[in-house]
Amino acid sequence: MLDEPLPLDDRGFAYGDGLFETVLVRDGQALLWRAHLERLERGAERLGFELPDPASLQALPARCGPGLTVLKLVVTRGSGGRGYRPPGVAEPRWRWSVAPFAPQPERWRHGVVVRLCQLRLSWQPRLAGIKHLARLENVLARQEWQDENIAEGILCDGDGNLVEATAMNLIWRRAGVLETPRLDRCGVAGTLLEALGERLPIHRVQASDLALREADAAWVLNSVQGVWPLRRLVSAEGTRLKDWSLERQDSLQSAAHSLLGYPGSEDLRDLVAK
Amino acid sequence: MLDEPLPLDDRGFAYGDGLFETVLVRDGQALLWRAHLERLERGAERLGFELPDPASLQALPARCGPGLTVLKLVVTRGSGGRGYRPPGVAEPRWRWSVAPFAPQPERWRHGVVVRLCQLRLSWQPRLAGIKHLARLENVLARQEWQDENIAEGILCDGDGNLVEATAMNLIWRRAGVLETPRLDRCGVAGTLLEALGERLPIHRVQASDLALREADAAWVLNSVQGVWPLRRLVSAEGTRLKDWSLERQDSLQSAAHSLLGYPGSEDLRDLVAK
Repeated sequence: MLDEPLPLDDRGFAYGDGLFETVLVRDGQALLWRAHLERLERGAERLGFELPDPASLQALPARCGPGLTVLKLVVTRGSGGRGYRPPGVAEPRWRWSVAPFAPQPERWRHGVVVRLCQLRLSWQPRLAGIKHLARLENVLARQEWQDENIAEGILCDGDGNLVEATAMNLIWRRAGVLETPRLDRCGVAGTLLEALGERLPIHRVQASDLALREADAAWVLNSVQGVWPLRRLVSAEGTRLKDWSLERQDSLQSAAHSLLGYPGSEDLRDLVAK
Repeated sequence: MLDEPLPLDDRGFAYGDGLFETVLVRDGQALLWRAHLERLERGAERLGFELPDPASLQALPARCGPGLTVLKLVVTRGSGGRGYRPPGVAEPRWRWSVAPFAPQPERWRHGVVVRLCQLRLSWQPRLAGIKHLARLENVLARQEWQDENIAEGILCDGDGNLVEATAMNLIWRRAGVLETPRLDRCGVAGTLLEALGERLPIHRVQASDLALREADAAWVLNSVQGVWPLRRLVSAEGTRLKDWSLERQDSLQSAAHSLLGYPGSEDLRDLVAK
């Protein structure tokens, strides 16, 4: 059973030795499904084990029931090995859970306030980009603030380069050019970001938070929440660093939301009463 | 029950959001027990949750049965929160398992061959020193070699500074001085290393693998295996970098082994037939 409890010797639990995906599912249809499966494949290759029968996953979204849900998929290297040493031939273990999901249209429409986090992400090229289970840095970063008015925290690496938000990717537009941080040393390569990158010219850059302050628009995004335009950036101490006036028509959001079956910015104006 | 399976929403499983200890237990008596509990306390403080009733742990070693065993203790932040965001008040969860253990006296006596790992440990001062569950770097490093003649892998950080071995700490003697790598940016502060540091002058230094080649003796150690003197260092590609001739009388090993109830180097000469 994919939803039964986990044995204590599972290496995902013992060492974070596994991968996960959170997938938006609408009426039994997974959105960006291929991108999620491909990231799992890339992750398993990086960790050095074979995904067991990914075909068996195909039936999962249909079991999520009607309406909007989030399917969480976890695959670990399974049990065995000796301490950190993995078993010669792993028998990976799938687990999954499903939960109803409600997006936040007011954040799509009116944007969000984000803060710079104090925690600096560490560089580990061997793990960068993939969505592995060892996510303690994200937990520590998300623990930095309790203010419900702050929707996300922006993370930099030890050199002060922008990387991502705690659970979302980051895009901004500067001098007419769409930019996003490089993710080859740390961070997670989000499926929505990747899918957008195939449709829009988004440049991967190395840039400090100065780039955000120079940007005339910026967004955080993921494949579950969609795209939240940034309305304000504050420092870790709460000082206002930048305000953005949201665009009348947000074509990046519309492009992203069409991939998720969410309303585009034009529809949002009618949808969300101000 | 401390040994029942884990619910899938446990944050230790989901994000590596927890801590562990592996404790040597002899006839129901835990060795370096206070040091293990203190490291758990330091770890919980770093992660921002309170250890639930550590007093209830006191009875565990006695339940490990006769002979030499290893008690593995895991404490996670429990369930709850929203994604990476921890719950306001965590209800941490203890789990434990016990396994019989046999040390390797021939490694104590005749030393071991170690290799330099290719993986570079990332700097994360917020997590350095503690024994958290997000140990994917150690798994990747241990996965680098299969040769049973190589006992451990030596890890450096991204700047080429020595840090530790994959599951042990590292000490060497250079110009008559005992040295060990600083562990404030990455690595785990081992309980045996800490206990030795209270008894011997061991200098924490920043040093590349050149220091090892200049050393006239070197050891890897942890609180379960004891102290293995290094006999040879090889590169990741297998090239011989350094040979050590083992000392007749190894006082560092004797000091460490007296803390674990293992035989000192003088006794070992009689114990292990060559």
